[in-house]
This record gives sequence, structure tokens and C-alpha cells, in this order.
Amino acid sequence: MSGEPVKKQNIQATHDVDGLQDVAHKLRIHSIEMTQASNSGHPTSCASMAELMSVLFFDQSGMHYDAKVPNNFTADRLVLSKGHAAPILYAAWAEAGYIKKEDLLNLRKFDSDLEGHPTPLLPYVDVATGSLGQGLGAACGMAYSSKYLDKLNNRYWVICGDGETAEGSVWEAANFASYYKLDNLTCIVDVNRLGQSQATSLGHDVQAYADRFKAFGWNTIIIDGHNIDEVIKAYQQSRDHLNQPTCIIAKTLKGKYMPGIEDQDNQHGKPVGGKDVEAVIKSLQGLIKDANKQLVNTEPDTKEWPVREHKKLELGQLNYQIGQKVATRNAYGEALKRLGQSDVNKVLVGLDGDTKNSTFAITYMNAYPSQFIECFIAEQNMVSIAQGLAARGKVPFASTFAAFFTRAYDQIRMGGVSRTNINLVGSHSGVSIGEDGPSQMALEELTMVRAMADSVVIYPSDAVSTERAVELIANIQKGTKYIRTSRPNLAVLYGNDETFALGQSKTVFSSDKDQICIVSAGVILHEALAAAKALKEQGINVRVVDLFSIKPVDVQGLTKAANASNNLVLTVEENYENGGIFDVVCGALSQQTGVKIHQVAVNSVPRSGKPQELLDFYGLSAAKIQEKVVSLLK
Amino acid sequence: MSGEPVKKQNIQATHDVDGLQDVAHKLRIHSIEMTQASNSGHPTSCASMAELMSVLFFDQSGMHYDAKVPNNFTADRLVLSKGHAAPILYAAWAEAGYIKKEDLLNLRKFDSDLEGHPTPLLPYVDVATGSLGQGLGAACGMAYSSKYLDKLNNRYWVICGDGETAEGSVWEAANFASYYKLDNLTCIVDVNRLGQSQATSLGHDVQAYADRFKAFGWNTIIIDGHNIDEVIKAYQQSRDHLNQPTCIIAKTLKGKYMPGIEDQDNQHGKPVGGKDVEAVIKSLQGLIKDANKQLVNTEPDTKEWPVREHKKLELGQLNYQIGQKVATRNAYGEALKRLGQSDVNKVLVGLDGDTKNSTFAITYMNAYPSQFIECFIAEQNMVSIAQGLAARGKVPFASTFAAFFTRAYDQIRMGGVSRTNINLVGSHSGVSIGEDGPSQMALEELTMVRAMADSVVIYPSDAVSTERAVELIANIQKGTKYIRTSRPNLAVLYGNDETFALGQSKTVFSSDKDQICIVSAGVILHEALAAAKALKEQGINVRVVDLFSIKPVDVQGLTKAANASNNLVLTVEENYENGGIFDVVCGALSQQTGVKIHQVAVNSVPRSGKPQELLDFYGLSAAKIQEKVVSLLK
Repeated sequence: MSGEPVKKQNIQATHDVDGLQDVAHKLRIHSIEMTQASNSGHPTSCASMAELMSVLFFDQSGMHYDAKVPNNFTADRLVLSKGHAAPILYAAWAEAGYIKKEDLLNLRKFDSDLEGHPTPLLPYVDVATGSLGQGLGAACGMAYSSKYLDKLNNRYWVICGDGETAEGSVWEAANFASYYKLDNLTCIVDVNRLGQSQATSLGHDVQAYADRFKAFGWNTIIIDGHNIDEVIKAYQQSRDHLNQPTCIIAKTLKGKYMPGIEDQDNQHGKPVGGKDVEAVIKSLQGLIKDANKQLVNTEPDTKEWPVREHKKLELGQLNYQIGQKVATRNAYGEALKRLGQSDVNKVLVGLDGDTKNSTFAITYMNAYPSQFIECFIAEQNMVSIAQGLAARGKVPFASTFAAFFTRAYDQIRMGGVSRTNINLVGSHSGVSIGEDGPSQMALEELTMVRAMADSVVIYPSDAVSTERAVELIANIQKGTKYIRTSRPNLAVLYGNDETFALGQSKTVFSSDKDQICIVSAGVILHEALAAAKALKEQGINVRVVDLFSIKPVDVQGLTKAANASNNLVLTVEENYENGGIFDVVCGALSQQTGVKIHQVAVNSVPRSGKPQELLDFYGLSAAKIQEKVVSLLK
Repeated sequence: MSGEPVKKQNIQATHDVDGLQDVAHKLRIHSIEMTQASNSGHPTSCASMAELMSVLFFDQSGMHYDAKVPNNFTADRLVLSKGHAAPILYAAWAEAGYIKKEDLLNLRKFDSDLEGHPTPLLPYVDVATGSLGQGLGAACGMAYSSKYLDKLNNRYWVICGDGETAEGSVWEAANFASYYKLDNLTCIVDVNRLGQSQATSLGHDVQAYADRFKAFGWNTIIIDGHNIDEVIKAYQQSRDHLNQPTCIIAKTLKGKYMPGIEDQDNQHGKPVGGKDVEAVIKSLQGLIKDANKQLVNTEPDTKEWPVREHKKLELGQLNYQIGQKVATRNAYGEALKRLGQSDVNKVLVGLDGDTKNSTFAITYMNAYPSQFIECFIAEQNMVSIAQGLAARGKVPFASTFAAFFTRAYDQIRMGGVSRTNINLVGSHSGVSIGEDGPSQMALEELTMVRAMADSVVIYPSDAVSTERAVELIANIQKGTKYIRTSRPNLAVLYGNDETFALGQSKTVFSSDKDQICIVSAGVILHEALAAAKALKEQGINVRVVDLFSIKPVDVQGLTKAANASNNLVLTVEENYENGGIFDVVCGALSQQTGVKIHQVAVNSVPRSGKPQELLDFYGLSAAKIQEKVVSLLK
């Protein structure tokens, strides 16, 4: 850890309290009008945070930014973790001058980027929000990046709902932020007491919120969130506080200043509606002292913007011998370390959740310690940190046991909505881990990532293809990319100069009279190869295809392989039956009449045992695959 | 809330401190010998908690149980959340007399239930652990069940690792436990400082742990975890404390009393090995004062065990009219309420995460408030609570927006390892929710549950089939069952007496000369039906199949439908392209040569818009489906 920035002193002597209060009311009116126009949305969730937004956007104590350059890399950034309050975010950018006010009424329209919840289609949004509890983690990733990697003085502001602090991911992020002393981070909790269907578990107990953040190592400040003076003071205190992140607990009322609606139940997520809307807007207009006054935003401290063109990350020359035994998880660590040599912009960041000596992320950490982040046992937050890094132009590689990526599926899913660029590498897949038992065996995570839009899934079978897989995904600049590695040592199958591509399978064993084609990957590919070799001795010709690229899939290659093998295909995989290699192959061959496809997979929850016993039990060992082939050919 | 039990006074005047210390050393020796025999496992993680286990199993302040009846419903229960310390759990049951000591050496063997991490294959284990941070939530579900539903006085003990408190799920559970005043719950955190790959983020800062639990509303006690007297006193204090759960923060050393290993890095998850093992065991034996003394466990306060035979949960007569517009999410709430009428054993429990007015779990809550648990915005914990309830013989139905079940995938996965009985119902699936945008649209959760072993996935298309789906899964007593509901109002398709079964599809539109078969479910089934009716006008005959049961799938029905429709199949679904209905149908027809299968699905991350605009954009509206059919028939 290093690079603690020197804090600036308060440079603004006076604050336009009346003007800021007027802006808050204007933001309320916009939010009401926008949701009225879209006939859906959350005006009351906007109203509770209007003063918080007004000061953030228009006082020197708040966000330092240039409204004309909303994606300024060196400016302060805001993450609206309570994404359902999107209208007031858009309204603030309108008041700041970036969005035309008349465009606000396009909220939630199909041809507008002013979506129901904010996404990075907008230049002032870094990560999509709307699944609660995720904004703080992403902001931690960005704040870490500014403080330790880019050495920038900009600040990150996060606005959370009170209800969303029930999400554990918030506390994973809170622990991360204090451990890494992210004093460039301010989290504001809008404690408006009311959730969607009832009061939150803590209601208006602001002290409880403060106690929790304090216990998690944060500087905490309790304020009346509707008092402009208190908001200003708290923001400035958060700017001045060193070595800790600051949490501002703002006591507010949902629907504040909306007559008949303020602090009432059953007012979540609906426009004011009917003729009430006119009365509410009129009442708010009556509170505005000077409707014509236009506040201006502060500017960022520096306009310098490091343009980072993607520089290809390259492995260089590999040095394996065919047949050498290397686990693909080891090859992952080696590959990342090799890529580091070509990483002139220092974009490559390794992350792990206290499993680095199992995933072999440790190989990279040892070579590039300042480019590695230990995220401890908090996989949700690790994925959010990775997305935060990606939002700052980094190329994150996050690893843990493959099974534990299921812990972060919602974060991974939201990364998809963000159109993020993250790389995930899961080790210890399948039953071949043996004795540790089913809780540690990944048998569905491949399907999980494959199920998303715009994802890439690679399942390499040896050290060479693993290293090339890492190189491939490191250079794809968009999307969620996943590599599944395995625990056992596996023979190197490919020469050091073999080339690999997305959507390209490899035929690793074949003849010109194959009777069946086995498609597999990972540990089981080696079992299939051994089976094919043994069957050849018996005069049975089997083609073996290394699928490698689960998504995108090699439709042409699989079609050719099936057609060359009597149109009979067998998939073998240490994965559960649904959504894995079998489904991939069935889908790829869905236009091929004449092909029959059979499957061997893990068809029940496994148990502890020796890897070989488990492979045998599920019909995935070379011997059992041989038997299966013989029975299919009968 | 009600049913706070009257606390018992300490009934044991003296404690056999020397005997308890001897047991602790014996547990250490067992753990070392067991992991030596299996050549894998975590002896040092066992050694740090040996005194905690010894007092828990053999002192009146600890667990009240009968070692001869390890599944006693009215006894205290232990959840070993740090599941990797399984050897010491098994060793304690051996010292208590339930397991033969020689059987301990079968640890991690394929034919032994003494797996690498504990699972409910063992009668003294209620939920599988091994994915960290999940034990506390499950224990909360069990403790809630005893306190409020079964009105039992038994106690729940949870042992967590220190590293695992970085998992946010722990804090979701912590918030739940204090909110519901679970004073029948003791959580013990074994603060041994060292994680798998390095020190934890808090190291030995036991005060920080205590501050966090205290801020989350718990009674907290800090002790030296190797001091028998302190352990006894803390356990008794936790028994006597009212209205709050208690957390005991035990400062310990990893590998305690293992010479050369104690408190050292790089000693996680490996047997002692080599010739060192003899020296370590000899050293431990030297610490035992009376090797022959046998302590006996305390007995539970009552042996009464309410035997609950499964009583079929029945809907009774439905009262819909064909064509009536009802959202399937509404029908879910109605169904649960109806089932309540037949629930004589009061096993049915509704849970929701502050979305009950959207999922319509509120319908059940209003009818049976004491059988409903508000879990707030903490989906991971909600699923763990459901598993805890299931372990207590309840039939939980947990609901939230379908998209947010992705948040709990690891918990759902571990439920699979537990062979749990839980029912999940996700609303707001697909792009048909419209304006709220992609963060709220479930487009992959169906695939996620389908990917597991032993899961059931149902995707109903109208109110009648939804109610029957709820009835079906409520009566399946094992497994993870999932129903996907939708937001829009949909025409009732089926008569009130229509019967539904797992693995059974329904042909809802057909002729004797169909040219193509459309397979769909949910909102899009209605679009497909409209398309088929319009195409009929043009002389094009289309069969439409309501898939209903995604898993298990109706192989026979789909085969018949395809064969009767020119062997041409089109799947249409508001799901991403991989792992959903298309994959299901391709897999089901993988043995059918001659069939071609085409797909329309959501092929990119959607955006906000009107439902109809989104259906059109993705080719899923009736008009676009018509066009697709015409193009396929060209």
C-alpha cells in the first residue's frame, strides 16, 4: 500500500444555501414529471435524496467534475447504488447542463439511454446499478485503482439506499474499503426508513447504521439529510478525513416535500399519478425562492486525461514439452505472469479471494505484487472490485475455486448489464478434485456464465491451451470472460506454437474411418483420449474433439467431426447434465439431421472419494468411456 | 413475534476442567490421525477449536443432546459453518460414543459418509457446509423455526471461521438474527488469525469482531478460546442471555499444541505428514492427564419428538374462467393461500425479500401472518433461512424477483449438496417487464436452477397451471424446486380441472397437418398462440406446445409433437440464448434424427422500453413469430 494523497483544504468560503435548496426542489419536480411521463418509476426514492444530490452536484464540498465532460477520467465519480432513483441522477445532469431538460421526459423510453436504472450507456455512469448492494463494491474497485494504481486525487461518491444495506455485499465492500484505507471514498446512506413493501429492519435508527460502518472501520457522520448546511459540512469532512473511507448516514423522509405522500407506506415505485401530481408540483414550486437562478458545477482539479490505447498483451514463447504433466491451474498463473512482461500500461490486475495458492494467482502476485489485490473470502465483492477496475481501463483477472463464482452470479450478471470487461478464472472444477467433496466441486458454473449474453467461456485441457486462453481473453476488450481450470496434473497435448481461437475446437485423435466422435474438455478429454487409444487397439476408431471454446462454439468444426464419425456423437464431461457440453453440442448440431448425440455427465450430487473412484462412478474414466462407446456401437 | 422461552439457570455446579482439556487433546489427535489417513484435510483448523468443541460436547454449559439419538428433533443442534474442520466434528461424535473410533480413519473415503465437508448424509448434520459463510443463515432459519413455529426450547450452536466473516452472507444472517431476537442461537467465531493463503484482514483483532457483531445487535463475549473456564462461562452466558443472539469471539491459534506448526503460515489444509506426525501426536499425548477417562454428554431436556408425516398440501377447487386475465405472479400468491387451508401441520412457510407486494407472497402473508417471514433485501440469507426451515421439516416457499435469485446461487447450490427441500418462486422474468430495464429482467435464472442436479424447474403460462405447479412442488419432499412467474396479465388457458404433472408438456394448438411446432412457455406462449391463430387464417398450420415442465422435460411429448409437425421445431423464449428452452428441446430430441430445431431468444442485453417494443425487438411478439415461421417454411 502506498500513495495516500495529500488532502486539500476547504477552498470555498461561502455556500449558496438558498440556491442549493432551490435546486433540490427542482430535482424533485423533474423526478415527479419524468416518472409521470413514463408512467412508472420511483419519485419518492428521489425526493428523499434531493438535498444530497443538490449539494453533491453544485457545491464545492461535493463532486468535482466538469458537466461538459461527463466521462472525465480525472474527475470525481458518482455511483448511484440505489439505481431505482435514476430519475434524480438524470435530473442533476440536466440541471448541470449536460442533458437537455426536455430530454428528461424520455425516461424509460426504448430509444433513450435514460433507462429505468442507470447503465454505462451513459458517459457519467461507470457501472450498472439496480440490483441493490453492488454500487459500493464497484466504487471500491475504482477508488483502489485511483489511489494505488493510477495515483489520482479524484474522489468516489456512492449513494446507497438504507434497505440495501441488508445485502451482505455492502459489508464485504465495507471491509475492503477500510482494510485498504480508501479515504478517497464517501458513501452516503439515504436512510428514508421505508423499503418497497414495508419499513426496513432498522427504520430510522441512524445510530445503528453509524455503529455498523464504524465497526467496519469507517469514519462516520450522522446528519439530517434535508439540511443543506449539514450536508455541506459532512461532505467537506469526508474530503478532509485521512486513512479511512467516510460514511455519511443521512436521516431523510421518503417523498420529502410531497404533500400527502411524504413518509407514507405504499408509495414505493409508483408515479404520483392522476390530478394529485399538479398539486404536488405546485407545492414544490412554491418552495423555490429563485426559479431563474442557475447554479454551476465545480470543475475537476485537473483536466489531464491519460489516453490508454489497448496494447496487446502477449505471452511470448512457451516452453512446454508434449506429455509433460502440468495442471491447467498452474498454467493460469504462469500465463498471467508472462502477460505481465508485455503489460507496458500496467493494466493487468490479478485478484483472488484467499485461494491464490490453489488457483495459482500467487504466481502473478509474486512477480507483480503491486498489480495484485487480495480480496479475502468475499467473492461477490471481488467481482465488483474487478468491475470497478474495468471501469478504470484495467484488465482484471479474478480467480477463486470455480464453485465459489456461483456466490457472485448476480454481480457477474450485472457486469453483463454494464458491458464490463472482466476475466474470471475458476479452478478445482469437477469431480476430479476428489476428497474435498461436493461443496468444493464446480459442476454448474460453466453453464452459469454461458447462460449470459455476451459472455465467453473457455475450458482448456492442457497447459499450452490454458496459456493461450488467458492470452485470448486478456485481449478481448468487452464482456465477461471465463476460463475453467482443473486441479490434477495433465499431459501437455499441444506444441508451443499451436494457435487457438475463440469458437475453434481441435480434433486431437482421428482416423479416416471413425465410428463415433467423442467431444470433451479438461480432465475428461484425457480420459477420452486414453479410451480412444485403447479402442483403436481393438479395431474401433474413435474421433476425439477438444471443444476448448464452450462459447462461442465451433459449429462448423463439430458438424465436420460428426459427419466424419458416422454422425454419432458422445459428449463426456465432469459437469452436471444440463447446460454444459452436451447442450452446447446439441445446440451446435440442431440444424443437422441425421446426427445422434449421447451424453455421459455427473448425474447426481457427488461425494468425497479418490478422483479415480469418482470418475469411474460417473462413467467418466477411460475404462468406462470405452464401455460406453462399445455399447453405443452395438 | 412471540414465544420467547424462559431461560434455564445453570444447573451444573462443577465442571471437569481437566477432563474437558483432555478431551480437547484427544480431538486434536483424532483430527491429525484422520487427515493423515486420508492424506488430505485440515488438522490445524481443527486444532484451533478443540477446547470449543470439547466443552460444547461434554459440559452442561454446551450442547444438550443425546449421543445415541443424533437426529433428535428437540435436542440442541450444531452447525459447523467452517466445514473444512469436519474431522473434529466427526471426532467429537466418536468421543461421545456415536461413531466407532476406528471408523474415523475412513475420513474422505468414497464409501464413508465422513466426507471432506459435512453433509446431511450424517444424522447430526442439518445442512451441508464447506462453502463458507452459509452456516449462520441456515442456523437462523432453524432457530426461527424452533422459537416461533415449533415453540421448542432447544438451542442452536454455530462455529464459524474468522476468515469466513468476510462473506457478506454472515452479516445478512447477523441482521436477521438480531431483528428476530434469536436468543436461542450462539455463534462462536474461531479467530485463529490465519486464512488459507495469508492472515485474515482482521488478524487477531478480536475487539473488531466483537464491535461488528455488537453493532449488528448481538450480545458479544470475547474469550481465550483455549481456556476451558472461559469457554464454559461464555457458553453459559449465551444460554442465559435474553432477547439477543450471542456471539462468542474466541481468540485461538491455528494448529494449537502442534509443535512447529502452531500459529505458522502455510499450514492450512494439509496433513502433518512424514515422520513429524509421530512427534506431534506424542507431544499431544503427553499433555493428556487421564487417557482412560470417558466423559459423557449431557442429555436433551426432552425426548419428545413430534413425528410429522407429510400431509398432502392441496389447492381444492379453482375458480378461473378461460380467457380471464391473471398474472402468473398473482396466481402464485393465491395458490399458496389455498394450500394453507390444507396445511394441518403448519409446515408451509412463505418468505420474501421486501418484494412481497410484487411477487404476491403478500397474499399468503395476509392470510397466514405467523407462517410468513420477511427476510428484507438479503436474498442469500433468505435462501439459507429456507434451508434451515426445511431442515426442521417445514415446506418453505421463498420468493423475490427472479433475477435476484442469481444473488443466492451458491446458497441454492449448497442446498443441492444438502439434499434440501426448498421451493423458490421468481417473478418479473424476461423482457416483458419492460420499463424497469435489464437489471430487473431475469433471463438466465431458469438455466441456473436447471444446471443443478436433482432440481425441478417449472415455467407456467397461465393462472391454472401456476397454481397446479405450486401444488406439485409443495408435495415433492426433496430437492430444489423453482417456478418462474411473469409480470403481465395473461389469459387463462386451462380449465379448472386440468391436471398437470412434472415432465408433461401440453399441446395447446394443433391440427392434423401441422408444418411446424412452436415450443414456448410463459408470456411468449401467448404470443406464439396468437401467431399460430393468425397463421391458420393464412392456411399455415402451426402446432403450439406449452413446455410447462422445463426439468424434467417431456421427451416423449416433444418427440411426438415434432414428428407430427414435419420434424420442424421453433423455440421462442424470453430468455438468453444458452441453457434455456432451446437447449432443453435440443437435448430432449438428441436421439431423433431428422428433426431441425430453430430458436428465437433474447440475444443481447436488453434495455428499458415498453414490453411490446422489447418483444418486437427480440422477435418474440406474435407478429415477429409469424414472420419467423413464414421464413422457416419458405
